[in-house]
Amino acid sequence: MNLKIIKDSCSMTASPKSPLAPKSFPNLLPIAGLEMGAIAAGLRYQGRLDLMLAVMHRDTVAAGVFTKSRCPSAPVDWCRASLKDTGGKYVRALVVNAGNANAFTGSAGLHAARATAEATAAVVGCEPEQIMLASTGVIGEPLNAAPIVDGIAQINAALSGAKWQDGADAILTTDTFAKSACEMAEIDGEPVAISGIAKGSGMIAPDMATMLAFIFTNANLSPNVLQSLLQEATELTFNCITVDSDTSTSDTVLAFATGQNVRHPQITDPNDPRLDDFRAKFITVNRNLAHQVVRDGEGASKFVSVTIEGAENDLAAKKIALSVANSPLVKTAIAGEDANWGRIIMAIGKAGELAERDLISIWIGETLIAVDGAACPNYDEMPVQGHMRGNEIDIRAYVGIAKGRATVWTCDLTHGYISINGDYRS
Amino acid sequence: MNLKIIKDSCSMTASPKSPLAPKSFPNLLPIAGLEMGAIAAGLRYQGRLDLMLAVMHRDTVAAGVFTKSRCPSAPVDWCRASLKDTGGKYVRALVVNAGNANAFTGSAGLHAARATAEATAAVVGCEPEQIMLASTGVIGEPLNAAPIVDGIAQINAALSGAKWQDGADAILTTDTFAKSACEMAEIDGEPVAISGIAKGSGMIAPDMATMLAFIFTNANLSPNVLQSLLQEATELTFNCITVDSDTSTSDTVLAFATGQNVRHPQITDPNDPRLDDFRAKFITVNRNLAHQVVRDGEGASKFVSVTIEGAENDLAAKKIALSVANSPLVKTAIAGEDANWGRIIMAIGKAGELAERDLISIWIGETLIAVDGAACPNYDEMPVQGHMRGNEIDIRAYVGIAKGRATVWTCDLTHGYISINGDYRS
Repeated sequence: MNLKIIKDSCSMTASPKSPLAPKSFPNLLPIAGLEMGAIAAGLRYQGRLDLMLAVMHRDTVAAGVFTKSRCPSAPVDWCRASLKDTGGKYVRALVVNAGNANAFTGSAGLHAARATAEATAAVVGCEPEQIMLASTGVIGEPLNAAPIVDGIAQINAALSGAKWQDGADAILTTDTFAKSACEMAEIDGEPVAISGIAKGSGMIAPDMATMLAFIFTNANLSPNVLQSLLQEATELTFNCITVDSDTSTSDTVLAFATGQNVRHPQITDPNDPRLDDFRAKFITVNRNLAHQVVRDGEGASKFVSVTIEGAENDLAAKKIALSVANSPLVKTAIAGEDANWGRIIMAIGKAGELAERDLISIWIGETLIAVDGAACPNYDEMPVQGHMRGNEIDIRAYVGIAKGRATVWTCDLTHGYISINGDYRS
Repeated sequence: MNLKIIKDSCSMTASPKSPLAPKSFPNLLPIAGLEMGAIAAGLRYQGRLDLMLAVMHRDTVAAGVFTKSRCPSAPVDWCRASLKDTGGKYVRALVVNAGNANAFTGSAGLHAARATAEATAAVVGCEPEQIMLASTGVIGEPLNAAPIVDGIAQINAALSGAKWQDGADAILTTDTFAKSACEMAEIDGEPVAISGIAKGSGMIAPDMATMLAFIFTNANLSPNVLQSLLQEATELTFNCITVDSDTSTSDTVLAFATGQNVRHPQITDPNDPRLDDFRAKFITVNRNLAHQVVRDGEGASKFVSVTIEGAENDLAAKKIALSVANSPLVKTAIAGEDANWGRIIMAIGKAGELAERDLISIWIGETLIAVDGAACPNYDEMPVQGHMRGNEIDIRAYVGIAKGRATVWTCDLTHGYISINGDYRS
């Protein structure tokens, strides 16, 4: 077989670290009942970690949110089916490989996914359906399961605690830094930990980003509670980020609750008030990870928040905000440090949601620059120019209909994006 | 007033002519009952034509299709209201200025539009409602009507026939070439002419492109027939092009039928079989103009046709095709001359329309490169590479649901786009 290699967001050459990256990889909170490790399996990259295994206590509960793509990858199909089969209970392990997305690989793709799950189940001592999978990298190339099967046994033999940074490194492709976040939360007066890792830097858009995220907690939650929390958090975080409006075939967010080292009884009602603090902290971890994905957006030089107020409802506000955040003309203006509110108006207008042209106001940073449908005479240009030169850009608009409100996050569109994705004439 | 100048797709520096431009400006067919001229009114550009006036016979019928933006420009509001007031009858003139879009200019914008229409009506000898207007250029800056009022009188005094190239030049902003097309058609055994001009190169997306197009004919048509023909043609042409997915506040397509120098009775039924040839030629003129807008896409180096077959219906096919045509990852891959079908799959998957993953086939040029949901083993890479190196790229995909079919047109996404829209740090 002389299969053509399809290049994708998986280049072999490392880009320089994003200027928007956090200073360093933090010490994540350990999660009782979780061990994690990684090795360099040589799946595509040479000499770097590319295979991660997380093994969890047998009481672990799992939940998942996946790409809405009509062409999902084999691991997405696998996880959806397994979560349905198991009801999200007794999930024992997570295997993630980087370098090959195992997407658009036909029946061979499903076989590779099954082989991975079977090998992991044999090592861990469970059924294949208790294994969660994710793959990221090249689309359309068959995934060779053999090095993964070998690698899983090696990682498992050496497991000792959670090697967070190894795990976070092993799931990266074109990312320029490893992404992680953690919070302590309280349930029923008792502390519980939430720690998560993520990857993603291009093919990022809601529903969801091209993006993997895995969030672990030792809270004792029923599967329906975890699924409910994850869906709510995803809607407010990962589904509010966009780099290039492109949605991957592999987007996966999985949450795991081990229920270990806690005394509180299992929470079985998503509306249980004992979840209040946990819910807030869980959303914080998801939002933190989502922001880091945007901060690693391909070619990004600025982190951009877009807030829309006064829309018909929150959903309409989100749609307008995404129209602004996805507009190539808005994104190139931000790259050019130009406070071009005409393009913001254009993007509000094209969103297809109600907006009262002659009531629209626009702020850049703290400065009101347009009001009641026209430029603000004599607004102070100095703080606006200063804001545009920074690397955290805030855009806010009021659209004059009702009380709908939403914030989304994106990055600017630079020559770097074109170079990463288009400069490989061969 | 210290109003900030909002830079937009209206730069002062000329870009080099698009490599996809036609060789030269053709001799357009004259239209009986139409005169056209232009001058340099100094509205923004210095020393180039920026104001166009077309004066038409008093029996002229007009039709219009406008942006679906919720924040339309003042001239769009003006035309919509005037066409409603007049029923599209007795339209006497069209005035177009470049350099200022008169959009998001509040009540001052409507006053400027009215002043322009009143001055033109006084010169031509009619009511202001019989005047059609369009403006293109900077958004959010007040339009000074005085030089336009002066300019109209000057152009009118010198009118003699239709100076097509002057008119086509005067409506350009960042365009790198003037756009025009014409066809001879037959109605009831009698020849009629169709000639049109257009502008647009960025902020181009369906509903509609940031784009102005004006199509003239001497056919004798009722307003409802002309409106029906224009809507049908727009849906198949201008609403099938995209450069950057951005939709302007000013998009306007107007059609004018003078009814002069023909003997056929007025056609009053859109389904009259005597319209068959005219309908086809009218669509051809619109498609030709729409393609030229894409060929002048900001930074474009390749003209791309995307055809989707096997969708649930034609509308679903168009939505999938636009998802492919608007994908930054597909567009950068084309710029990089990379036959990256993985990104095409991604874009099909994210469109939200039905697609049967394991039945999808993809062609690039004449070559089938993926079939039944997986890469084609041993496809011939040579013709694909050759095709990608050309400047006319054809992408075709079959999505395995039903018989829906659509073709849309776009261009690649290059460093040139970023430079034109983002490289003006000040």
